[in-house]
Amino acid sequence: MAMQRTPLLMSRLIDRGAELAPNVEIVTATASGTRRHTYAESRNRAHQLAHALADAGVGIGDRVGTFMWNGSRHLEAYHAVAGMGAVLHTLNIRLSAHDLEYIINHAEDKVIIADADALPLLEAIAGRIPSVQKVVVAVEDGFEDWHTTVAPAEDYEAFIAGKPTRYEWPAIAETAPLGLCYTSGTTGRPKGVEYEHRSQYLHTMAICMTDSMGLSATDAVCGIVPMFHVMGWGMPWAGLMLGCKQVMPHRFMDPARILRLMADEGVTLSAGVPTIWQGVKAAYEANPSGYDLSQLSRLTCGGAAPPPSLIRWYWDALGVEMIQGWGMTETSPLATLSRRVMQRAHIDLSPDEQSANVAKAGQVMPGLELGIFDDDFNRLPHDGEAVGEILVRGPWICAEYYQNPQPDSFHDDWLITGDVGKIDADGYVIISDRSKDLVKSGGEWISSVDLENHIVALPGVAQACVVAQPHPRWGERPVALVILDDGADVPEARILEHCATAFAKWQLPDDVLHVKDIPLTSTGKMDKKTVRAGLAAEGYKLPSLR
Amino acid sequence: MAMQRTPLLMSRLIDRGAELAPNVEIVTATASGTRRHTYAESRNRAHQLAHALADAGVGIGDRVGTFMWNGSRHLEAYHAVAGMGAVLHTLNIRLSAHDLEYIINHAEDKVIIADADALPLLEAIAGRIPSVQKVVVAVEDGFEDWHTTVAPAEDYEAFIAGKPTRYEWPAIAETAPLGLCYTSGTTGRPKGVEYEHRSQYLHTMAICMTDSMGLSATDAVCGIVPMFHVMGWGMPWAGLMLGCKQVMPHRFMDPARILRLMADEGVTLSAGVPTIWQGVKAAYEANPSGYDLSQLSRLTCGGAAPPPSLIRWYWDALGVEMIQGWGMTETSPLATLSRRVMQRAHIDLSPDEQSANVAKAGQVMPGLELGIFDDDFNRLPHDGEAVGEILVRGPWICAEYYQNPQPDSFHDDWLITGDVGKIDADGYVIISDRSKDLVKSGGEWISSVDLENHIVALPGVAQACVVAQPHPRWGERPVALVILDDGADVPEARILEHCATAFAKWQLPDDVLHVKDIPLTSTGKMDKKTVRAGLAAEGYKLPSLR
Repeated sequence: MAMQRTPLLMSRLIDRGAELAPNVEIVTATASGTRRHTYAESRNRAHQLAHALADAGVGIGDRVGTFMWNGSRHLEAYHAVAGMGAVLHTLNIRLSAHDLEYIINHAEDKVIIADADALPLLEAIAGRIPSVQKVVVAVEDGFEDWHTTVAPAEDYEAFIAGKPTRYEWPAIAETAPLGLCYTSGTTGRPKGVEYEHRSQYLHTMAICMTDSMGLSATDAVCGIVPMFHVMGWGMPWAGLMLGCKQVMPHRFMDPARILRLMADEGVTLSAGVPTIWQGVKAAYEANPSGYDLSQLSRLTCGGAAPPPSLIRWYWDALGVEMIQGWGMTETSPLATLSRRVMQRAHIDLSPDEQSANVAKAGQVMPGLELGIFDDDFNRLPHDGEAVGEILVRGPWICAEYYQNPQPDSFHDDWLITGDVGKIDADGYVIISDRSKDLVKSGGEWISSVDLENHIVALPGVAQACVVAQPHPRWGERPVALVILDDGADVPEARILEHCATAFAKWQLPDDVLHVKDIPLTSTGKMDKKTVRAGLAAEGYKLPSLR
Repeated sequence: MAMQRTPLLMSRLIDRGAELAPNVEIVTATASGTRRHTYAESRNRAHQLAHALADAGVGIGDRVGTFMWNGSRHLEAYHAVAGMGAVLHTLNIRLSAHDLEYIINHAEDKVIIADADALPLLEAIAGRIPSVQKVVVAVEDGFEDWHTTVAPAEDYEAFIAGKPTRYEWPAIAETAPLGLCYTSGTTGRPKGVEYEHRSQYLHTMAICMTDSMGLSATDAVCGIVPMFHVMGWGMPWAGLMLGCKQVMPHRFMDPARILRLMADEGVTLSAGVPTIWQGVKAAYEANPSGYDLSQLSRLTCGGAAPPPSLIRWYWDALGVEMIQGWGMTETSPLATLSRRVMQRAHIDLSPDEQSANVAKAGQVMPGLELGIFDDDFNRLPHDGEAVGEILVRGPWICAEYYQNPQPDSFHDDWLITGDVGKIDADGYVIISDRSKDLVKSGGEWISSVDLENHIVALPGVAQACVVAQPHPRWGERPVALVILDDGADVPEARILEHCATAFAKWQLPDDVLHVKDIPLTSTGKMDKKTVRAGLAAEGYKLPSLR
């Protein structure tokens, strides 16, 4: 033994912020303004929560569900459950009762910590989640009259009151489970991804690297991405390790409110999906003098590719760098990352070219390997032309699903991501599409994502969604659903004409449907499965087949 | 197995730079200018070197010595030996023949790769290092007529010529040995620290974190610290992983030449010991309009604490941030780190206060734990007052010495660092001294480092070294050796008067000796053991005892 065999446990990282930055604040939005804790207070409360959970019978490896918005008590749950060696099962508040019931039973959650305002959603499955012995209820102003019959329930503050403020974090194996997150499951039952201490420890270090999200103790971070999505993209852990200010929107997800919070709290870095940043942009443009965003320097955008026009707007209007991250529940989540300048050769590029870099999914994170493969798992060249299935491997990549291995999702030691794309000569990954969302027309592939990005760049278009529709001759043909800005008038012909400036004739949508809204998945992405099902249900036919 | 069990091997990191930045350069200083390789070329050559070493009988776990300056071939040796699973034993060119012989035999080096200009130093031990089967000679201009009788020898270029440019890096355990570095041994025989793949992998990620050295692919790094010191402080590994430009001074360590190299190559980050930065400062001041250092943004300084006046000069004169790192061979080496602003509370500090932060050893790196302890290993408070022995633990901290466990250097799972210091309320470590260099006077401790820093801030003083001398009543008393700037006249009385402005009367040196030079250890630190031995040899007595 040459070097110390210190296990890579989150308990070795999560108290560090409170040690070094005891007075830095953790800020949670409330109905009347904000609620504030220092790191020192938050650490004490987390250790109290660990004692309370242990007293309630939670041991090492037991699952603790959270059914919560982003807020200080959710952060305390991360801290406590990780430290004590239990397993943090973050439940997605936006799931259907059907999926929620399945997931809680599959994970056999022992305790659920829930925000009081979310209790009605849990109540729908009362009597059907027998493993749950206790519900701990986090109460915000206005929800004092909470009620649940799901399990014996107790107020969060009463639950932790009087407990000791130091818990001796146990020595467990670094490969012990840390967390569980179920994929939203576009097909079949939701599948659980079980994170380990080792995998999140490494991921936490990786997202603090300069060429990554570049998190620093001097940052004030605001995670808009819910903490029930893939460990909040790792930002809660990084915050606890570094001691940066953390600002949390709780249930107040209105874009104007988010902007107000970011301005008032001097947020330097925020993270969310493109639809959030579309909304925030609109809110800003409605009141451009209303928000001082001078502290804001970067927005991490993931979950789906941000349109290049959006990336460019944030840079031109606000001087804010959008950072694109690509990954998924199975990749912890950060697998690739793109910034304006990530290579020496890019230092002198024009602003347009630098923005174009961010429109790519980016470079593989150090520690991971990524390749594109054909249907027989032969490697394809990184020439910016060849398109193939993206496979990834490394120490924070899923090896199997929780009690549901799904070998078809893996090839040797690689994860088959379900995304299709190419890799250019600079090593940047460019996602073409989800493999199931690609439009396969006449043996060629059409990227729905490329079409959508092009369409939303047209003034007057707020959102676009391209899906495949069956065609007897071509197999599939693309159809575009489009939401216009209020009062805008962009006819189909104008959209097709705009597409023709960048796409071949056979790649143009066969139809453009003006719609009022596009359904979203529980993780905020456009739900193309539901879009396709909706078209089928209404007996939609392509114009050439009518 | 929830997450992939990807081993943390350096072979997973070291080819990444060449993948992402094939055209970025690795620049080596030569007699006539520079020699330049691209990352793509360097990777090919490293893989060729691995084949050549394997063909020469080097297998997994075998030790390969390097006896080299910082240069492209030394980097190739790092790359090849790490990738193939052999052990890189970096031999310090400045060691005595006596120590060199001991170390090579203790490590049982099988092959040594040596710079031709350094061969005479090896020749001194010819016939006494039987394990060495081959010497591979890296030849620079002017050294074509090299000669050695140490072992059968071959020119480096001939050795690798024609070998395949791809080596399939083997799958080995992440705790397999990666490198060996012997401490310069102020007492007893040199002791070997064996680095593992896992420990250096984590250290590499850590030094790329924003709040650390903040290495980025966009940097042009220049390691002045020799690559035979503690893996060149990790910068060669980080460079290979990120693909940043690497600039290497080889044997041209004259400060003016270093400055010229940094200016010509647009270096953004350099790293070295304080005596280097003292020399570079003097060279710059001798010709302030001669160097364009506009790209330079930070200097990492380690090995010994930089005087506050030096930190401030670089900031005021050049706008360059000095980053202090503290560590040792046993800590891989980075254990703590200090930057001008590492906490939100420090953002609005004055330039003086921010420079004062850098004068501290800094905050413990994420992943490590550090404490100060009394003689019975009781923890002392972090109040900026209590002074104790510094102990550290974590995944890149030594657990025992190579085939020479030395249990007295460890306490439970902690390394006893041999440094003494305090920790302030902000969590900053402040090193008082090496425990063996503290002056113990009348039961109280006097920090030689504090006195030295204070004395060198006096105009006209170039360097100061404070050592203990025996005293029958007080046990020990401090004596200052001082080197003055050329032509300066700073009498003893002026130095003592200056010390009296900051130190109590009993802490003042009993004597000030004007000297021409101060001996340095093989790692460039002031060699206080030799200073004390020299005083003893000449029969030195404190003035009050004469």
